[in-house]
Amino acid sequence: MNQFSDTQRIAMVVEFDGQLFHGWQKQSNAITVQAVLESALAKIEGRPLATASSGRTDAGVHAEAMLVHADVSARHWKRSARTYTQGVNRYLPDGVVVVGVCAVESDFHARFSCQSRRYRYQIWNRSTPSALLTWRYWWMPRNLNIDAMQEAASYMLGKQDFSSLQGAGCQAHSASRDIGVLTIEKKGCEVLIEVEADGFLYHMVRNIVGNLVHVGIGHWQPEYIQELLALKKRSEGAVTAPSQGLYFVDAIYPNFSARDLIGRQSNE
Amino acid sequence: MNQFSDTQRIAMVVEFDGQLFHGWQKQSNAITVQAVLESALAKIEGRPLATASSGRTDAGVHAEAMLVHADVSARHWKRSARTYTQGVNRYLPDGVVVVGVCAVESDFHARFSCQSRRYRYQIWNRSTPSALLTWRYWWMPRNLNIDAMQEAASYMLGKQDFSSLQGAGCQAHSASRDIGVLTIEKKGCEVLIEVEADGFLYHMVRNIVGNLVHVGIGHWQPEYIQELLALKKRSEGAVTAPSQGLYFVDAIYPNFSARDLIGRQSNE
Repeated sequence: MNQFSDTQRIAMVVEFDGQLFHGWQKQSNAITVQAVLESALAKIEGRPLATASSGRTDAGVHAEAMLVHADVSARHWKRSARTYTQGVNRYLPDGVVVVGVCAVESDFHARFSCQSRRYRYQIWNRSTPSALLTWRYWWMPRNLNIDAMQEAASYMLGKQDFSSLQGAGCQAHSASRDIGVLTIEKKGCEVLIEVEADGFLYHMVRNIVGNLVHVGIGHWQPEYIQELLALKKRSEGAVTAPSQGLYFVDAIYPNFSARDLIGRQSNE
Repeated sequence: MNQFSDTQRIAMVVEFDGQLFHGWQKQSNAITVQAVLESALAKIEGRPLATASSGRTDAGVHAEAMLVHADVSARHWKRSARTYTQGVNRYLPDGVVVVGVCAVESDFHARFSCQSRRYRYQIWNRSTPSALLTWRYWWMPRNLNIDAMQEAASYMLGKQDFSSLQGAGCQAHSASRDIGVLTIEKKGCEVLIEVEADGFLYHMVRNIVGNLVHVGIGHWQPEYIQELLALKKRSEGAVTAPSQGLYFVDAIYPNFSARDLIGRQSNE
């Protein structure tokens, strides 16, 4: 019996304010969400402890429901999932909260078991910026043609080569991804873009949004998106949308999704 | 002809983040919204200039649509209302934005012409707080019985003596106010309370919310609100809800409302 034989793998749903962190992934020289979460868990467990997540977000990108797994002390966990979660939240700094937890099988993996990820991008489409929600939106004072954006979005659906939407420095072996959902909704002065795919290339969501907005303000006809994707060249596309409007909103697994677990504090 | 004969009275709709200011009204020793707005206007006009608003908000209380009037240089204003507004916004600090403007008659008064004011109170009703919107809600982890709150709210409607909901230090001559609207809506984990009245006593909205929440968590039966109002004693009520969840959302005038003017930049 090794020292970790009495562990339980758990899944945690994490909400965070991207503005306060240098992204999700641990780095030697910057404060990241993974670093503060592992540090909080280590205080509870009295030992260092590793985590894995459904996705890695860049600096400035927010999350409403990032899924993270870790192997925690079974004895501790079994007593009360609620107490465990409250303990972790007590050690977390402002801007990160564990909003749901449950037990998972020992072969569950936050990254490798994940079937698809979902993001939402928020645009504030009004002549004046927001005083209350500055850091939650991309402010776009020009009128956006939503119909044209919806037509442009339709060309991005399905399994395709997304080299034209891949940020410089992307380390993926292939640029093929499958976009299952891409919707654009106008609610008052908010324009909300939701996208779900099996995975995303570096800066891909922000490049999707940058190109859709370029169509929305009339720089391009919607059909140009077909041409752009066929070119397989990032340099022919529009600028990358800023990180502050981007939210990781769900990670979908065979038996549940991260969003479903919000509010759950069960040790089963 | 006096030096101000060529002025035009204008109405401005102002959005602000209450967290960054010590309320609306000018004070000698603190940064307020009125002070920064008057200072921005003075920079445009090259002379000191007074403003009046539809309401005065406490420190921490936000506004989506506060209405403010001022007498500005007609020559300057007539050239372009859009340029004038952009100029004011350029001189305003983060957290205050003029989101709409129009010309009004010289006898229009933001406070005295106002027929009713509307506030919204936002509660985050979930076992865990929000990482993204901490300063935009009152976090209430206990379950709220919305039906009971709605019944309690019904007893607050109409013209009544609201001494029991009047904060200490209120300088009003009479505690009689007329609540025309008081609704409670649950949207996911948000509970949104909207209230409209001819006017409000000091801390009145926050005391309405504090008492409704006391009913919602089961401390009181809804009918107790009738008894509480009849007692005319603030000391028999629940605690005042915190300022961070409160938003001034509209000021209603005979010919328009502040919310209607959002997005308008017309010099007519």
